[in-house]
Amino acid sequence: MATRRDFNKTMIKGAGAAALMSTFPLSAACAPQSKKLGVALVGLGSYSTYQLAPALQDTQHCYLAGVVTGTPVKEKQWADKYGIPTANIYNYDNFDAIADNDDIDIVYVVLPNSMHAEFCIRAAKAGKHVICEKPMAISVKECDDIINACNAAGVKLGVGYRLQSEPYTNEIKRIVREKSFGEVRFVSAEAGYRSRGNPDQWRLNKALAGGGALLNMGVYAIQGAIYGTGQNPISVSAQEFSTDPDYFKDTDESITAQFKFPNGATGNIFTSHSANVNRHYSAFDNGWLELNPANNYGPLAGRLSTGEEINFPHESQQKLQMDDFALHVLEGKPNKAPGEMGKRDMIICEAIYQSIAEGGKTIDLDLGGMGIVG
Amino acid sequence: MATRRDFNKTMIKGAGAAALMSTFPLSAACAPQSKKLGVALVGLGSYSTYQLAPALQDTQHCYLAGVVTGTPVKEKQWADKYGIPTANIYNYDNFDAIADNDDIDIVYVVLPNSMHAEFCIRAAKAGKHVICEKPMAISVKECDDIINACNAAGVKLGVGYRLQSEPYTNEIKRIVREKSFGEVRFVSAEAGYRSRGNPDQWRLNKALAGGGALLNMGVYAIQGAIYGTGQNPISVSAQEFSTDPDYFKDTDESITAQFKFPNGATGNIFTSHSANVNRHYSAFDNGWLELNPANNYGPLAGRLSTGEEINFPHESQQKLQMDDFALHVLEGKPNKAPGEMGKRDMIICEAIYQSIAEGGKTIDLDLGGMGIVG
Repeated sequence: MATRRDFNKTMIKGAGAAALMSTFPLSAACAPQSKKLGVALVGLGSYSTYQLAPALQDTQHCYLAGVVTGTPVKEKQWADKYGIPTANIYNYDNFDAIADNDDIDIVYVVLPNSMHAEFCIRAAKAGKHVICEKPMAISVKECDDIINACNAAGVKLGVGYRLQSEPYTNEIKRIVREKSFGEVRFVSAEAGYRSRGNPDQWRLNKALAGGGALLNMGVYAIQGAIYGTGQNPISVSAQEFSTDPDYFKDTDESITAQFKFPNGATGNIFTSHSANVNRHYSAFDNGWLELNPANNYGPLAGRLSTGEEINFPHESQQKLQMDDFALHVLEGKPNKAPGEMGKRDMIICEAIYQSIAEGGKTIDLDLGGMGIVG
Repeated sequence: MATRRDFNKTMIKGAGAAALMSTFPLSAACAPQSKKLGVALVGLGSYSTYQLAPALQDTQHCYLAGVVTGTPVKEKQWADKYGIPTANIYNYDNFDAIADNDDIDIVYVVLPNSMHAEFCIRAAKAGKHVICEKPMAISVKECDDIINACNAAGVKLGVGYRLQSEPYTNEIKRIVREKSFGEVRFVSAEAGYRSRGNPDQWRLNKALAGGGALLNMGVYAIQGAIYGTGQNPISVSAQEFSTDPDYFKDTDESITAQFKFPNGATGNIFTSHSANVNRHYSAFDNGWLELNPANNYGPLAGRLSTGEEINFPHESQQKLQMDDFALHVLEGKPNKAPGEMGKRDMIICEAIYQSIAEGGKTIDLDLGGMGIVG
């Protein structure tokens, strides 16, 4: 089976298993316009409902082929809305049978953070390529488990870092890489929003979320610090701010962290579930750049010290992300958010929590060898 | 003598002692246009040369009446350039004789930081109103000594915080005070520049400067955190970053610090002698504001989350500052940067250095009772 499916993945991606089994002409199936990978979304919460599923209607290289849900009433809703065949609808118990479903090439795990590892590993074992929503997991150990499972199964692994496919973010990376303003000396990144909704939401439950603002939004600030310097940090210190412990009983409300980078640049980040902040700034010897907003669903906005604006046509970040991953699978194009990037960020998150636990102590980081910047 | 001089200060401020001693009609001298206080600059370095002296040519309520310098060659240069009578030129040895010079109402101490206390106290003892350049001194103890000396002498005391008289800064204060965007949740302030000039400059010498980036530029970031929330912080933690110890042998190169404010807002600041950073940002429940640049000599620039720009005609900040102080002396208008503000900021600087010395420990601050916000 693995051989047949590997062959399918690289040669003929069509409208579903039925087509592949039919006498459908191979030449037609091989035409570029028909190479659309089938994606199954695992977990039909608001991100799948309002972002991923709509984006998958516009993607060029993949499409919404299936869903996996623990809520039976959603099965028919999604089937009706998106024309998903019953055979491509799974629950958490029968999910592993997805191994036998050739309609599904990619499993996108959009569950609460603590469930990422289990379902990514099950998806890999089912022979499916995996996109794991950010944060990748709730520990470095789980990230390793996911990476190892994907490697063992020979499937691709991406993390749902939509900004890695986003043009403003990539313009920042280009300016940093080309040293258009000279050497970078400082980076600041802020990612957060004021969250005072349902007190029973999983994001407030440490067992499900693994952490609070840091794991939810802080990973964007961490990524901003990294793409804004083009370097992995070599140390970090951090502080936690708790002002509303009745609401944030279990998870971090606000965190500041400071990075040191190999070239001597300093990074200063803030993440919060109590403040609406959404900015990126890099200061160079001969100028600066900024994004504001920097990490929402867009359109983002940016400007340079020259007075120029950064401007790109708005496209769904989720659409761009999923097409990038599909092209990685189909054509070997770069994986813009590989599992190692998610693991690197979780190493940093764990160091931040460690620093907080140790009263703000500076924690050395050894990420250089990971080679994943951006 | 004190009585006569006090009378002069409130009643007839003219073009100099000679005029006052003449038969110049009192009614003319009392007219508002003639109430100009005489300022003596102590220390004729670049700030006096390129900022304060030019500004004092445009001030409405004070003028450059004298200088105090330890560099004999400057005496004639300044006398020639600004028409300063020989009698109004002092050196550090004969400075105390300024007590007998009725041309001089205000002494502005612009010496290296470690000399502020000595010369401010000598100026106060000479019966002169005092402006002390920022940072006020190199310890809280010295700030207290200056405040006590001015109180004992019955003279006014201001700190050279030019931004306290600056319209963009005051617009931020107004928006914060009026809660135009609701409750403030986060403030970020960055103040620094890349300094790689003369390695023998006094700013790099701890004995003269008392500290590095923090005391030089960090006080602006501290003030930004305070005026950007309208509150004095209740705790602070801090970290030092040293990347160029050959150049910064003696003084702090870069510092990050985190504040907690009474309403729960978080503050995150950065100051540096290695990075060009010049920003202010406050995030509220319903919007944000920012200045960039926020703390140079202007023109500053600002914008709001509504898309509006903050815009004021540019005026010399030093001119505005000195006229504000003159009006405080002449008419009892508010002292926009009193000694207690300088002392408060030095309390915070000492806490920041303490936190750094203790590995980033959070230091409680008890500033509420000081009542100086902004």
